[in-house]
Amino acid sequence: MSRFISNRFSSFDAYIPGEQPSDTEYIKLNTNESPFQLPDSITRAVSSETGKLRLYPNSDGTRLVGKLAKLYEVSPENVMIGNGSDELLAFSFHAFFEKGVVFPDITYGFYPVYAKLYNVPYKEIPLRDDLSVDVGDYTGIGSNVIIANPNAPTGIALEIDDVEKIVKGNPGSIIVVDEAYIDFGGKSVVELTQRYDNLLVIHTFSKSRSLAGARLGFAIGPAPVIEDLVKMKYSFNPYNVNRLTQIMGEAAIDEEDYFIEKRREIVETREYTAKQLKEKGFLFTNSSANFLFGKHPDISGFDFYSKLKDMGILVRQWNKPRISDYVRITIGTKEQMDVLVTAAEKILAEMGDI
Amino acid sequence: MSRFISNRFSSFDAYIPGEQPSDTEYIKLNTNESPFQLPDSITRAVSSETGKLRLYPNSDGTRLVGKLAKLYEVSPENVMIGNGSDELLAFSFHAFFEKGVVFPDITYGFYPVYAKLYNVPYKEIPLRDDLSVDVGDYTGIGSNVIIANPNAPTGIALEIDDVEKIVKGNPGSIIVVDEAYIDFGGKSVVELTQRYDNLLVIHTFSKSRSLAGARLGFAIGPAPVIEDLVKMKYSFNPYNVNRLTQIMGEAAIDEEDYFIEKRREIVETREYTAKQLKEKGFLFTNSSANFLFGKHPDISGFDFYSKLKDMGILVRQWNKPRISDYVRITIGTKEQMDVLVTAAEKILAEMGDI
Repeated sequence: MSRFISNRFSSFDAYIPGEQPSDTEYIKLNTNESPFQLPDSITRAVSSETGKLRLYPNSDGTRLVGKLAKLYEVSPENVMIGNGSDELLAFSFHAFFEKGVVFPDITYGFYPVYAKLYNVPYKEIPLRDDLSVDVGDYTGIGSNVIIANPNAPTGIALEIDDVEKIVKGNPGSIIVVDEAYIDFGGKSVVELTQRYDNLLVIHTFSKSRSLAGARLGFAIGPAPVIEDLVKMKYSFNPYNVNRLTQIMGEAAIDEEDYFIEKRREIVETREYTAKQLKEKGFLFTNSSANFLFGKHPDISGFDFYSKLKDMGILVRQWNKPRISDYVRITIGTKEQMDVLVTAAEKILAEMGDI
Repeated sequence: MSRFISNRFSSFDAYIPGEQPSDTEYIKLNTNESPFQLPDSITRAVSSETGKLRLYPNSDGTRLVGKLAKLYEVSPENVMIGNGSDELLAFSFHAFFEKGVVFPDITYGFYPVYAKLYNVPYKEIPLRDDLSVDVGDYTGIGSNVIIANPNAPTGIALEIDDVEKIVKGNPGSIIVVDEAYIDFGGKSVVELTQRYDNLLVIHTFSKSRSLAGARLGFAIGPAPVIEDLVKMKYSFNPYNVNRLTQIMGEAAIDEEDYFIEKRREIVETREYTAKQLKEKGFLFTNSSANFLFGKHPDISGFDFYSKLKDMGILVRQWNKPRISDYVRITIGTKEQMDVLVTAAEKILAEMGDI
């Protein structure tokens, strides 16, 4: 730390992303990436754009925004793109949450970091004992809310009606719904943004469109809310999404059928994996995401994580109250999950030997 | 604007980038892009990386940072990368300028926007009448300073000694030097970052490395200052530079000789163009950048800009006190500049007819 940093930044901790080891070839089930390669059409689209790299990108991503608007059945003025959904979440905290925000005590670990970064007062509302959201905790509270749906790392999804209750129940506040994992079985509330002026939905191309390495997110909301976010962008980094990412986003929208099929495979593999592991005594939340969140009564979360890592399989585990017994397992290919199940069996068998 | 945006954001104006028209084929001399294509090795590097796009990028850009450190003869701990230099400038305002900052009244138009975005008190110090920086105005003032060298849009460069006076003259404050245009004849102060703990230098790949469309900037400074900026990054968007941009940055460093030659061509074309236009009565600042900044006594800046635009040539002009008579002309290829000179002659001849 230098002697020049503002006092308030010297005292808080940044977000810690999942491990990205470069030394060994792990089966990487720790950061919710897609196991599927991109269709050739997307990489071909990149080649068509490299000749224009000397020129700044379109700062509004007009063509990509148009395609997203069409796909989600909204107007282009309801959509904006960002350098990953993280950037759009940050803009939202900065623009809208001056007076405060609430979110669950167990959710995406970046929310408290954004709150501290922008001096936003925040309150964490405990999940129920079964790690589900009690919608009643979020209605009529007169506060801005950010909620991940499905929630992370629990994977538990809310029904559209439940989100609507929160939106309706706080008409003077803005409700941001982070739908990073919505495409694996949850129900999107995008449609509600056409009827409520206080709802903003944030999506990413990183999970259900295999583009984590390209950094692309998008926000859908009422036009005035999107206008505010666009203003934040133009006050921070007008050319925030580069040319190749924009063209890949466009090509990915054109391949929606491919990704729908791949999401179906992920859901199938998730249920298959959960079944196998439940037979060995694992307990899981009811995940609607591209990961499982579970624990086993005979082994701590950290021990299970460590033993898997020794066997070349990376999963994610948090030393955090209430969830330290759990691990989060990204759904990979069926073959990768078979390796995981076999490894889990082996670990449990060895435990029995002790 | 929505009813949810924080009060302080409702009252200020975002940055307005130069026009990026999509309707007609202009000779585009308005946003200081490079007229030169990328070497094939850079686009080939992209192809080698597309197979990994399903995975998050390396959040530290370790390989690229290593290459930059080697090129600039510093340690990797002295370097970080950003999503364009704009992002790094924003992080700097947010991290370091809580108590205030000063910069010239005529400089990169984004500085006052960043100051307002992060609630930073700022003071604009007037340039001299000849639009040069009076170094005496910045020494011993006990304030953080941000200064573009060469300055924009004047193109006038400071000597290393002059920057050192500012750095030495404000030992309790941090001095940020924005060297976006340094490679076209200015002298970089990167070397001073090894001797002063209060100097941060920011560069971009957009101008002298033909990569405006890829969005890549980098900061070089004392390790503790870089550590602070990295913390801002990890509190905002850990994966801020995508995979393809990182690999292109690496390939561009490997092509440094190509870009050195292209910068030499730009400088040659700049001097050639200035000579032609001076013969027609234009007056220019002494530019060390990839643009000319000048005026003609017989025509207003806006009229000259408008007439050029009608003739298919885009330059940039500001309706701003002291510089509204000027236009900024990006240096393109020699052929493009010949078209510009001919157009200027025609415009002046028509003025004579009136």
